[in-house]
Parts: sequence; structure tokens; C-alpha cells
Amino acid sequence: MTAIPKDQSGDGALRVSEADLHAFCRAALAAAGADEATVDAATRAMMHASSLGVDSHGVRLLSHYAAVLIAGRLNPRPNIRITSGFGAVATLDADDAHGALATYKAMEHAIGLAGQMGIGAVAVTRSSHFGPAGAYALAAAEAGYIGLATCNADAVVRLHDGASRFHGTNPIACGVPVREGRPWLLDMATSAIPYNRIRLYRSLRQPLPAGVASTPEGRDTLDADEAEMLAPIGGEFGFKGAGLAGLLEIFSAVLTGATLSFDLPRMAGPDLTTPRNLGAFVMAIRPDAFVDKSTFDEGLTRYLDRLRASPARDGCSVMAPGDREWAEAERRAVQGIPLDPVTIADFERLAERFDLALPFAAGQLGRTPESATKKPTEGDSR
Amino acid sequence: MTAIPKDQSGDGALRVSEADLHAFCRAALAAAGADEATVDAATRAMMHASSLGVDSHGVRLLSHYAAVLIAGRLNPRPNIRITSGFGAVATLDADDAHGALATYKAMEHAIGLAGQMGIGAVAVTRSSHFGPAGAYALAAAEAGYIGLATCNADAVVRLHDGASRFHGTNPIACGVPVREGRPWLLDMATSAIPYNRIRLYRSLRQPLPAGVASTPEGRDTLDADEAEMLAPIGGEFGFKGAGLAGLLEIFSAVLTGATLSFDLPRMAGPDLTTPRNLGAFVMAIRPDAFVDKSTFDEGLTRYLDRLRASPARDGCSVMAPGDREWAEAERRAVQGIPLDPVTIADFERLAERFDLALPFAAGQLGRTPESATKKPTEGDSR
Repeated sequence: MTAIPKDQSGDGALRVSEADLHAFCRAALAAAGADEATVDAATRAMMHASSLGVDSHGVRLLSHYAAVLIAGRLNPRPNIRITSGFGAVATLDADDAHGALATYKAMEHAIGLAGQMGIGAVAVTRSSHFGPAGAYALAAAEAGYIGLATCNADAVVRLHDGASRFHGTNPIACGVPVREGRPWLLDMATSAIPYNRIRLYRSLRQPLPAGVASTPEGRDTLDADEAEMLAPIGGEFGFKGAGLAGLLEIFSAVLTGATLSFDLPRMAGPDLTTPRNLGAFVMAIRPDAFVDKSTFDEGLTRYLDRLRASPARDGCSVMAPGDREWAEAERRAVQGIPLDPVTIADFERLAERFDLALPFAAGQLGRTPESATKKPTEGDSR
Repeated sequence: MTAIPKDQSGDGALRVSEADLHAFCRAALAAAGADEATVDAATRAMMHASSLGVDSHGVRLLSHYAAVLIAGRLNPRPNIRITSGFGAVATLDADDAHGALATYKAMEHAIGLAGQMGIGAVAVTRSSHFGPAGAYALAAAEAGYIGLATCNADAVVRLHDGASRFHGTNPIACGVPVREGRPWLLDMATSAIPYNRIRLYRSLRQPLPAGVASTPEGRDTLDADEAEMLAPIGGEFGFKGAGLAGLLEIFSAVLTGATLSFDLPRMAGPDLTTPRNLGAFVMAIRPDAFVDKSTFDEGLTRYLDRLRASPARDGCSVMAPGDREWAEAERRAVQGIPLDPVTIADFERLAERFDLALPFAAGQLGRTPESATKKPTEGDSR
């Protein structure tokens, strides 16, 4: 176990090195019965999120994944297959695999198609929660392709002017390769805020921002206890957020034949046994199939240079999508990844159940004051 | 000229039949020197917007298009060519054509590719203002394909926390074919509101909605006279709108080698002579390349049926993207298309210059009271 000096982060949270966290995730997933490919993919996706500061989709999901691997919702040894292909597109049957494994495989196939055809798209069916959409978009960008990834999810978002939970937070992620520097990386839900944020405001007894959540009647509320559903992005112009959520629902659930968000059994259970048939959709695009590589690189460089140098309003700074996350990843590589108390307790249960070494020393546990309770959602700004 | 009974609309606006408006657009464009293909495409795009109630992108653009055809910014007889193709993608050089002609041609090519490859994408370079993005997405949907269309545009939208005009209103449109019924049709700018809306609030001396426009310092303002730039969609969460605008900028200007929004000379001039090298990007997707046609149709029907039947908040109704526009198109087919005073005056100048018959009788002109001044932007809710 690598010791992380406790005083570097300054926020008092328990922090664990990436290497130790990585090893613990692998050990817990393997102990829960996952095959090597599942262990690799699920760990890679969680560590992507935990490194970049998207804690809602990071290692806090480990104990959930272990539980559904054991209960049977997830197939620990799936036979993932491309069931049909037509030109530059394909359909992938995930065989109830962990969503990270299915989606990494889908993106890998899309990249192969895009290499030959300029573009490749893969519809994923019979999948499961895939965690951070940005992980799959980034995989494409790291291979030199523009990557897009989306999925549907538990219905917790109302329609514009609606009064029921209808869409999932249906995220869209896009990664764009940048010649010198980390990829441009957008990863956003189409809801105004993540559902976790409601839970955070409840626990902090603070009022919600305006226009982000609604009562069961669809009325906007600032009271986190009253909040029954999320608003789509856009506030008064929420038809845009709802329209985008619908577009992503059509791609990830209709084009795949997967279950629509409002028909999904809940992620949190009580049924952890029955597969959920989530859908996902990924696309890869080969930039030099459209323009010379140098034209693409120079256009993107000019765009990003101007963006980062452009004036900001008082007290603010201007960033490209991903800039905040790459900076956080650098900090966390040094300071370690913060764990919130719920995740710490989950890890302790996993360690006990599977007889695993914890990625932190028992002596560190005193250092989880109030501020640490913010961690699971603080970085979850998407 | 078909007489439209003036009392059917009830709003006092001058209304003109679609057939008469269509004929006038064609005559004016031809008189301005446009070839047959340009006349067809530009008229089709304007009439799409005017029929569906998106008046900001409808026939009010006619006199602008005539002016730039005459001044030389647009090539009235372009030689539009596919300059490169690679598998399922291609690049189209618009030869400074009217953007509608270039984009309809690009979508036609994308549909051909999607028919053979399941998906097709075409990057458009050396193009110009294409009007309503939804027109091209709809062309795909009417052919049985999912269509996506985007472009870049004059920089009038700030970044999240930015204090300068950076992105265009960079729209995204998507059309999805529906087995029984009109296509699902989303057409939205990635700015909080259209720029025209600022002009409307200025003329009405009314305060703006909160969080949609900013001063030159990037500070939110409710004062339309102070508004220098638009906010991206999302308000406090405007990094989402700015991220989407950036994604569409990369697709339409970087992947095409076109001019970035912040480098574009202004649409309104003063230079109406130099081509602007706008970019656009279109994609067509063949649903049955992914799933059985019946699976797709049944999934989409279930999605739309549930959406339209889902509870709305008090005093509101829930609609799918396009529902409002299709209903407006039915009304306008009967009641005619309303013209605002500025457009009427433009038409009179065009008629005089080119010796054309106006699409309305001189006697109708008294009927353009105050309420008509709202028309150019009222339907422009995207």
C-alpha cells in the first residue's frame, strides 16, 4: 500500500493512491466472480471516473457491481457477440455483461469500422450500467478518433412541462483527439443536475439551485426533500434538454431494441437478480477521412488556443470540456483519490466478506470529517 | 393569388398562402440570378421554416439571400462537388453555393451512403447560411432515415463564464422517421435563446428572461439594450450548452476545414461580396441496419405514445419535439403564413426592383397592427 501524505489535499478527506484503489477494485470484482475481461473493463471505467473527479461514477460503484455480479443481474462470464453488421455499423449483444466491458468492446469495434469506413457506429443491447460515458469516448480519442457514447438509464428526469419521471439522465460523451495535449472531453447528463446532487443537498439541509428539480406535480422546488424528479437542462427552455434526452433515448434504447428508460427496473433494486437490458450506442469517426490530418489538427489547435485565451467574467476562468478534469487527474495522481464515508464502509464490508486487504490503513479512518461527505458528488459536476 | 380570409387567424397579421409565398420566393431568387437548383433548395428551406412556424429562418431571409446572390457572396450557379470520399463518409465542396442547396445535396449523399453502409456522414465546406437545420434532418426522416444536421454561425454566444462572443448559435437538428405520423423533429440552437429574441425584447421594451444574455463583461443582464451576447443553454450549468456548441463547432468547422465561428465575417455585412466559408455537417442513419424495422417502429411508437400520454404540470401540455411545429403547419396551411412589417417592406422592394407580383394585395396592407411585429420571432422558440 502506498502511503499518501494526509496533509497534501488540505480537505481532510481520506485519500488512497490510484494504484492501491485499482488493485482493490480488481480483487473485489474477481472475488465476486467476474472473469478477467470484466475485471479489467469495470476497473478501468471506475478508475477513469475516480481519477478525473467524477466521483459519482467512480469507485463508489464497486460494491454495487460486486452485489449484482453475485446476485445474478450481471453475467460474470459473458459471451459478448457482434450479432449483426452492415457496412459501417453493427449491433452488439452484451449477454448481460457489465456495461463497461460491453461498451469498451463496442467502441473497439466502432474504431475498427471507422478505420476502414471513416465512421463506425455500434448499437449495444442487453447491457447494464456502464458508469462514466466519458471513459468510452476517451478510448476513441486516445486511438486518434472522435468518439461518442451514450446510454439510457433509470427514469428520474421529467419532460419539459412534464410531471412524471420519464427519461434517464441519458448522458452524452464526446472525446476529440488533440495533437499536443489531452483530448477535448465532454461528458454530460441531459438533466440539469445529477440525481446524487439532490441527495447531497438533502444531507446538507441546503436549498437546491432554482429550476433543477420538481415535486411529484412537476412544480419546481428548492426543497431537496420535496424533490421527486430532475428537470431537463435548460430551465425555462427545458424543451432543449428534454429533446436531447429523447434523441439519446432513441439512439440507445430504440435503435438497439433495449428497454426504454421508463420501463427499466430500478438500478438500486430490490431486484438485483434479473438482467435489465440497458442499451448504449457508440460511434467513432476518423478525422482524416474528412480532411487532411494537418487541417484538422490546426483547426482544433486554433479553436482551443482562442478558447483558453478568451476573456472570462469577473472571478471566473474559461475552460474547454475536460480541462477541469485533466487538472483534477493530475492533482489526484499526487494527492490520491478521496473516499467518502459510505464508500469507506462499503470497502470494509467487501474486504471482510472476501478477505481482502483494504487500500487504506485502519489508522487513517479517523480522518473522515464532515467535509469528506461532499466528496462523492463534489466532482460530479456533469 | 389565393385569398386568405383575414379573420381566420385572429391575430390581425397579414397572412399569405403557402403557394403564393412559394411562387414569390422562386421568382425573386431567379430574378437575383440563382440557377434552378438554388431556387429550388433555398425556397424549400425557407418554406420549411415558414410553414412550421420557425419564422426567424423562413421567408424573412428572402431579401437577404437575394442581396448576397447579387453582391457576390453567394455563387448563383455553383459547381458543387464531392471532393473526397472514404467508405461511409465524404466531403462536399459547396463552391460558395446557397447553404440550403449545399446541405440538401450533402444529406442526399449521406442518405445514399447510409443505404449502403448503414450510416453516412458528409462534411460540407465553402458553404453559406443554410437557414433551418431541421429542413435537412427532415429530408432524411422523410426518406426513412434518421438525419442529423449542424452548422457553425456568426459568433454571438459566450462561453460558460466567458465574456466575449465565441460560438455561433450552432444548431443541431435531428429527424427520426415515425411509422404512422409525422417525424420526430428536434431543431434547436445551443444558445439559451435566439439572437432575434433580444431584438424583440428591445422593441417591446420588456425585460429579458433571466440568464439568457450578458453584457460585454459577461455579466447576466435582463436589459435587452445592454445585451451584447447570448448565454449558452443551461444557465448555471452553461458548461453543458457551451460544450455542445463546441462539439458542433468541431464537427461543422474543424472536420470540414471551414472558418471557425469567431473568425467569420458577419452575416449582415457590411461585406456582402466575399464568400464566408461556413461549414456544415450532416449524417444519415438507416435504422434497419441496426435492428429489425418492426423492432425500431414498435420501440419508437411505445416511446411516443407514453410521452404524449404522460402527465403534465398544471396548465401545460407535454409534446414530442416537432409536435408543436406540425400543429402550426396544419394551421398555417389553412390560415396562411403571417408576414411581419419588415418582411412586407422587403418584399415590396424586391417586387419593385424585379417587377414581380406581390403575394398579397395592396388592400391587405392596412392590416399589420402592433401584434404583427411579434410574428418574426414568436414562432422562433428554438
